[in-house]
Amino acid sequence: MAHDPQRKSISIFAVVRIEGAFMTDITKTDVLIVGTGPVGLFAVFELGLFDMKCHLIDILDRPGGQCAELYPEKPIYDIPGWQSISAQGLVDRLLEQIAPFKPDFTFNRMVSSLEKLEDGSFRVITDENELFEAKVVVIAAGGGSFQPKRPPIPGIELYEGKSVFYSVRRMGEFRGHDLIIVGGGDSALDWTLNLQPVAKSVTLVHRRPEFRAAPDSVNKMYAMQEMKELDFQVGQVTGLSGADGQLSSATIKGPSGDIEVPCTRMLPFFGLTMKLGPIAEWGLNLHENMIPVDTEKFQTSVPGIFAVGDINWYPGKLKLILSGFHEVALMAQAAKRIVSPGERIVFQYTTSSTSLQKKLGVAG
Amino acid sequence: MAHDPQRKSISIFAVVRIEGAFMTDITKTDVLIVGTGPVGLFAVFELGLFDMKCHLIDILDRPGGQCAELYPEKPIYDIPGWQSISAQGLVDRLLEQIAPFKPDFTFNRMVSSLEKLEDGSFRVITDENELFEAKVVVIAAGGGSFQPKRPPIPGIELYEGKSVFYSVRRMGEFRGHDLIIVGGGDSALDWTLNLQPVAKSVTLVHRRPEFRAAPDSVNKMYAMQEMKELDFQVGQVTGLSGADGQLSSATIKGPSGDIEVPCTRMLPFFGLTMKLGPIAEWGLNLHENMIPVDTEKFQTSVPGIFAVGDINWYPGKLKLILSGFHEVALMAQAAKRIVSPGERIVFQYTTSSTSLQKKLGVAG
Repeated sequence: MAHDPQRKSISIFAVVRIEGAFMTDITKTDVLIVGTGPVGLFAVFELGLFDMKCHLIDILDRPGGQCAELYPEKPIYDIPGWQSISAQGLVDRLLEQIAPFKPDFTFNRMVSSLEKLEDGSFRVITDENELFEAKVVVIAAGGGSFQPKRPPIPGIELYEGKSVFYSVRRMGEFRGHDLIIVGGGDSALDWTLNLQPVAKSVTLVHRRPEFRAAPDSVNKMYAMQEMKELDFQVGQVTGLSGADGQLSSATIKGPSGDIEVPCTRMLPFFGLTMKLGPIAEWGLNLHENMIPVDTEKFQTSVPGIFAVGDINWYPGKLKLILSGFHEVALMAQAAKRIVSPGERIVFQYTTSSTSLQKKLGVAG
Repeated sequence: MAHDPQRKSISIFAVVRIEGAFMTDITKTDVLIVGTGPVGLFAVFELGLFDMKCHLIDILDRPGGQCAELYPEKPIYDIPGWQSISAQGLVDRLLEQIAPFKPDFTFNRMVSSLEKLEDGSFRVITDENELFEAKVVVIAAGGGSFQPKRPPIPGIELYEGKSVFYSVRRMGEFRGHDLIIVGGGDSALDWTLNLQPVAKSVTLVHRRPEFRAAPDSVNKMYAMQEMKELDFQVGQVTGLSGADGQLSSATIKGPSGDIEVPCTRMLPFFGLTMKLGPIAEWGLNLHENMIPVDTEKFQTSVPGIFAVGDINWYPGKLKLILSGFHEVALMAQAAKRIVSPGERIVFQYTTSSTSLQKKLGVAG
């Protein structure tokens, strides 16, 4: 993912990566935001104006959600005040705008469970067993979680999570292994280049000699192929051998027939699909895979859990980014009443309030 | 008003000025929008995506509403995607964004009456008796109408509308008259310079020799005073003489006592104040001077009349520009059902729809 110069703005944040944390390490925050698309990001701004500290979790490895994942370069024409702005451009602008509030991010994680504690706060657990506690949870998860598409290889499910992985969470997982990477996009090429120094051997498999990836990465891969530092095979993986979830070899069907290649780890990159995922099990009412909310606070059927952006539903709902911006502004008022009960909420304008301007670091 | 280079973008539109129109001239449009603040302007975009033609009316002499009138240079920090943008900058951006839909504007007019016709459409009459017919009316009037403040001169109300005016609608009104202009801001200075060639004499009255106006205008005024082309008096108007609403002279109290100056027309510029104005008489339900709407369509108690932006009210309402943007998007769907009954409404994204991109003039 190092090939897109537009993506540099992420470095202004402290990216929190909790590697192999114990369940007893609890990250506490005022507001936990699930999803880092434009609406999740702008929530940090509206919550920040009321001094609420935010921690954001996303299943992707960077902020931006669908925008940055599905159409980073495509222009959007209906963001008010912009004749045209690229999805990535909007995300970068929002990251700049929320920077004064110093949000914390955890990427590459899915929230697997969400539980209300006796004191009214929430315990959130990720699919890597990290633990968060928050007074308010804001679901800004768009269409749900991005989940990897499973390639059509018979019996692959027997190896998933043991020797077949759909993302790289720890490079150490691949050290010393005979690795096959399958796919023709940026993820396949990036990880081929990044894991080559770590793995015992790397075989890249793609149906065609042409790639949908940054030309620079493709050139590097072909140069390494030339030096025999890796092996690129045109073809498809059609069979796997192994036992107890541990791969030993794979069959690749190429233009000149089948070959058998040693393989103890496999990384297929067949793209992502959107699924509601574990959110369906959080005990919230659902309406056609969306979460019904009121239009005063954008609160779900569980007090203290809000849903904003494409994942929520109310009469008239349109899945527009600009609607999500409105929703987080109203949500922030209600969240403040939970985070700071009894405190008087003074509604002020950024144009005229010196106190808000101080928080934004722009007070004269 | 010719001194601010930022205001050039208005020239991209056909500004409709109907001078002395007869009541039988009817301007017909799909949607009549009352108010040209940021929310009224963005309504043109959302309505335009569904092929609805808009005509906008504003009491001010240019688009922008409160933003452009009260704080054009002040930065706003809570427009999503902008760390900071000036009010006038936002208005200019919105004007660019709606330009593909070629809206018509009528400035310097207040809507004085609004009436539902038998066929369900609306007849709108301005304070200059121009007539409009529209299938849908959108009230985007912010805090209401900007109304001029009356200066503290005894008996001035006897002359208002006859020889004392608070704005210049037709320069011919002042031709050949002994004119007194009172005030120290841009309006006072601009009209002093613009009416000097037309009037018989011009006297500018301001309490201090310092002005809150463009330095260039102040310099020009002092140069003309030097050439005796006009007369600037430091002081205050304390009395008026005349009969039947026609002024004949005014008393100016200055540092060296009272002087009597011939005066047959007066233009006091004491600033503007916000009033709900005639909207209160349109038969809509009101809630503390705001117009209650639902949150699905942002429709008022009268079907076909919508209210968006600062003037509307619903549970959770915040007077934020970004909320108005959301409101007009949902309103546009409901308006389309009225303007084109029975037509199937297809919700599309500007990012992916070639049809929308053609309307915006950006289709590849």
